[in-house]
Amino acid sequence: MNGRVSLIGAGPGDPELLTLRAARRLAEADVVLYDALVDQRVLELASRARCVDVGKRCGKRQVAQAATERLLVRLARRGWNVVRLKGGDPFVFGRGGEEALTLSRAGIAWEIIPGLSSALAAPALCGIPVTHRGLSAALLVMSGHDLTVAESILSPLPPLGMTVVILMARQHRRELAQILLQRKWPPQTPTAVIQSVSLPDQKQWYGTLSELTQPSDSLDLATSAASLLVIGSTVALAAELAPLLTAIPMPAIPTPALRASLG
Amino acid sequence: MNGRVSLIGAGPGDPELLTLRAARRLAEADVVLYDALVDQRVLELASRARCVDVGKRCGKRQVAQAATERLLVRLARRGWNVVRLKGGDPFVFGRGGEEALTLSRAGIAWEIIPGLSSALAAPALCGIPVTHRGLSAALLVMSGHDLTVAESILSPLPPLGMTVVILMARQHRRELAQILLQRKWPPQTPTAVIQSVSLPDQKQWYGTLSELTQPSDSLDLATSAASLLVIGSTVALAAELAPLLTAIPMPAIPTPALRASLG
Repeated sequence: MNGRVSLIGAGPGDPELLTLRAARRLAEADVVLYDALVDQRVLELASRARCVDVGKRCGKRQVAQAATERLLVRLARRGWNVVRLKGGDPFVFGRGGEEALTLSRAGIAWEIIPGLSSALAAPALCGIPVTHRGLSAALLVMSGHDLTVAESILSPLPPLGMTVVILMARQHRRELAQILLQRKWPPQTPTAVIQSVSLPDQKQWYGTLSELTQPSDSLDLATSAASLLVIGSTVALAAELAPLLTAIPMPAIPTPALRASLG
Repeated sequence: MNGRVSLIGAGPGDPELLTLRAARRLAEADVVLYDALVDQRVLELASRARCVDVGKRCGKRQVAQAATERLLVRLARRGWNVVRLKGGDPFVFGRGGEEALTLSRAGIAWEIIPGLSSALAAPALCGIPVTHRGLSAALLVMSGHDLTVAESILSPLPPLGMTVVILMARQHRRELAQILLQRKWPPQTPTAVIQSVSLPDQKQWYGTLSELTQPSDSLDLATSAASLLVIGSTVALAAELAPLLTAIPMPAIPTPALRASLG
């Protein structure tokens, strides 16, 4: 009899932000296939499992993904309880859909245990409500990895109509800001960059869209960490919210340009 | 000395989809202010707390919101550990930003413990990846409560450019579909309606955008439950994914029109 495959979202990083069901499935697992983004303390919850790092490396994505999917099927056919553990949420830029399709086509029952996506959790943990009465009635979540795709998504948007969250934005941060500025988004649009949210090395920067086009060193961010962009009026609320938000490791200091735009 | 206020997202409903930190804070709480949407089994985790229902009623929203915010401040000033518990995520159409602003302005330290928003968890738990290579590179989350606002958000969007998730969509379901059809979204665009996700009375319907304009009884949905719409190509993946997804209480049956559009 086939085992069960659980596609589990590990959330943004802090093990306490796992769901109760995710923690239970990890404790029951025979084997855990995890990505490089998953925190070691989360893996320790899988006390009786063999943990296998299937994290993808640049340039070998297709191979690694297909191999991971084959491995999931093979392990489930042995009758094992298999956990596929991903950072964030498996179905939000996590390729969980591809793994679920492979399992379904192989006739293997699977379940999904959603995790907190950084797309929502990172702004929240930095004092940025992604929706707010009178400021933002919608949220757009996208990836900044492919600039052509990103431009096709951003171009039709009217300026300031919603909060825009861009995952995997480190490489093309400046170009993404330029796209919006060319589409008449105001240069003083409040903007944040968030790295390693919920982890000890969390960093956040609050500024304006025009400042985002500046070189990295002026933003005092880690040059190697994944970066999430938040763009829109609600980012300015962090100026009031972040100082009283106890989880922020360092007090949040908006740039002079953002403070000036707040009046 | 002031107590701590924790703004906590309870997730879509199933108590096991709470985070570990949310469960811990509930166990430590002196008082819990909760909304009508929160499941009784979640409240049972707050074993030593007084639980107060501050759920909003139609027509009295403004009054109730201001009163809730005053109560949060008053309880924190007594030195109590206060939990403000909301369905989903406090910062995604949850008015958590307003409560956090009131606390910050009163000088009271607060924290946020994000919860699984139904905007992401409902599609996932029904076998719909909101992003998927080649099908959807972005996700738009909005509310269907105010049709004028909804139209202003939907109108600029090119057809099929992203997955659209509309919360609070029951009342204006048919009009929302009409807006997209008028903007040249294909009538056979895969569409789902999800109610009470993760709870015993979960219901899901998979069909097409044009079928969404039909009267409610032809969709076999609960007429009183909150409805979440998912619109976009990835919804069609549920035809393959949902039958092997163990958490779905009833096998998912796409409508004949959706099956026909899949070829």
